[in-house]
Amino acid sequence: MRAACYTHEKLKPIKQKKIPTLASKPGGLERLKSVIEDVWPQTEAVAAIGLGSPGPLDPHSGYLLAPPNNPEWHNFPLAPSIEKHFSVKTYLDNDANLAGLAEYRFGAGKGHHHVLYITVSTGIGAGVIIDDRLLQGYHGLAAELGHSIIDPDGPPCSCGFNGHLEAFSSGPAIVKYVLGELEAGIGSVLKRDSSMTARDVAEAAQQGDALAIKAYQRAGEYLGIGVASFLHAFDPSIVIFGGGVSQVGGLLFDPFEASLRKRVFHPRYLEGLVITRANLGDDAGLLGARALAEMKIGLK
Amino acid sequence: MRAACYTHEKLKPIKQKKIPTLASKPGGLERLKSVIEDVWPQTEAVAAIGLGSPGPLDPHSGYLLAPPNNPEWHNFPLAPSIEKHFSVKTYLDNDANLAGLAEYRFGAGKGHHHVLYITVSTGIGAGVIIDDRLLQGYHGLAAELGHSIIDPDGPPCSCGFNGHLEAFSSGPAIVKYVLGELEAGIGSVLKRDSSMTARDVAEAAQQGDALAIKAYQRAGEYLGIGVASFLHAFDPSIVIFGGGVSQVGGLLFDPFEASLRKRVFHPRYLEGLVITRANLGDDAGLLGARALAEMKIGLK
Repeated sequence: MRAACYTHEKLKPIKQKKIPTLASKPGGLERLKSVIEDVWPQTEAVAAIGLGSPGPLDPHSGYLLAPPNNPEWHNFPLAPSIEKHFSVKTYLDNDANLAGLAEYRFGAGKGHHHVLYITVSTGIGAGVIIDDRLLQGYHGLAAELGHSIIDPDGPPCSCGFNGHLEAFSSGPAIVKYVLGELEAGIGSVLKRDSSMTARDVAEAAQQGDALAIKAYQRAGEYLGIGVASFLHAFDPSIVIFGGGVSQVGGLLFDPFEASLRKRVFHPRYLEGLVITRANLGDDAGLLGARALAEMKIGLK
Repeated sequence: MRAACYTHEKLKPIKQKKIPTLASKPGGLERLKSVIEDVWPQTEAVAAIGLGSPGPLDPHSGYLLAPPNNPEWHNFPLAPSIEKHFSVKTYLDNDANLAGLAEYRFGAGKGHHHVLYITVSTGIGAGVIIDDRLLQGYHGLAAELGHSIIDPDGPPCSCGFNGHLEAFSSGPAIVKYVLGELEAGIGSVLKRDSSMTARDVAEAAQQGDALAIKAYQRAGEYLGIGVASFLHAFDPSIVIFGGGVSQVGGLLFDPFEASLRKRVFHPRYLEGLVITRANLGDDAGLLGARALAEMKIGLK
């Protein structure tokens, strides 16, 4: 979870701090308050506080809905509690939306007005900027692009539903595919091991292991299918990839780009389209919380 | 093609007119000009002209790109030509975007801020309103939701690419499915006939024909899969269906709703969600051209 205090005066630099594992231990709200107090500026008025958290959550009400691992936070009024305690306007959104907002404001997407940010990691999340505005939706649940249905008969996603992009192209999906193929008797330097990670598969691929290469090719191909549909839906000028799995480079992105080009139904979508990596790293969520607060109080 | 002249003063009623078959006969630009002259108000200044046309087109530049049936209009500066001739700001967008905009402003979507409009007809088009703004995208090609990839190995779409929503749930897709099943020897009151329409299939279904019912069930099921992904992407508060095929009612929409509910990955998307039919009929495109002009000159 992340918190950013925003000081109104002259767009001064923002005080911000990342709070790890907030959701997985009890007493999180008190820890969050004390972290905000730690970064509270001495001499200036605070205009707004921005908070980021894993979803699902409601950015309109500031409630956490049902974050995994901690029942303490189910249906919890996080932003209202902080707002009441500090008497300062407080805004909340999910990590992927905020990372997208941050890349648009401060990172790889600077200068673009239509941004599609996709994080490929243990899950697949997204943040979408349309005409310089963060897409949130009626319930605040828009841009859940990892849960786009890519193949109705596809494998189950972590959410329990079938055939989502996340079930094809996330880190765990890559591992699951390899384990299935190993079980079916396909040869590989990789061994059947439940602790296998997408990084292990990437290392095997870099050593030339055919199964490992095929696993990333498959993930990239489905990612291209998904992103083709996202271009048709949002028509962005830039697609930015973040998340651990995206760091493998060409292993994933060569088959991704080939698949995307094969699937986009009109060449105009690709005219001037930038496809690139996120450049804010771990700071993206925190900078996004800042950008959210600035956006909501109308400074940007 | 549609044209609307908008008079600035006191939000007066707009002069508007539909021009049939503009694109399929030569001399269309001159006919369009003369129609606009016909509706030109006698005593008031015209603030803007709104134009609607089948796509693909570029709403930012006002160029038609490659409308079917008439090479005269390929890469043609339609809005700039009208704007120059009348010395009045002129705006252009495609029929589906404008119908969505019209339903949001004047029709079934009035009062909603996040609207998903889908027309199911010979093709499948869409118009999306996000936070009270029409989604157009960087190249003006956003919201082409009929070309969402629903199944990568699915049947070819009218655009030539495989597995698009339009290839499963449009009128021609329903007919094609029936013809394929008849060819495979499935019994039906319907006969193999290349002039078969989706309406013929609907009539057979209403008489209890099992194949015809199955054809609409299949179209509705895939429509539900597509719309589930669109809810995850846009999170609207209302889904509005227009287009001829949508007039069959429960035959399509009962299986659609069952499929949608089965596929939406979080129940919150459905909370308060309205699913309804368009109510502006054939006027939607024309009212959309008016709404576009009003939106662009900042009156709405």
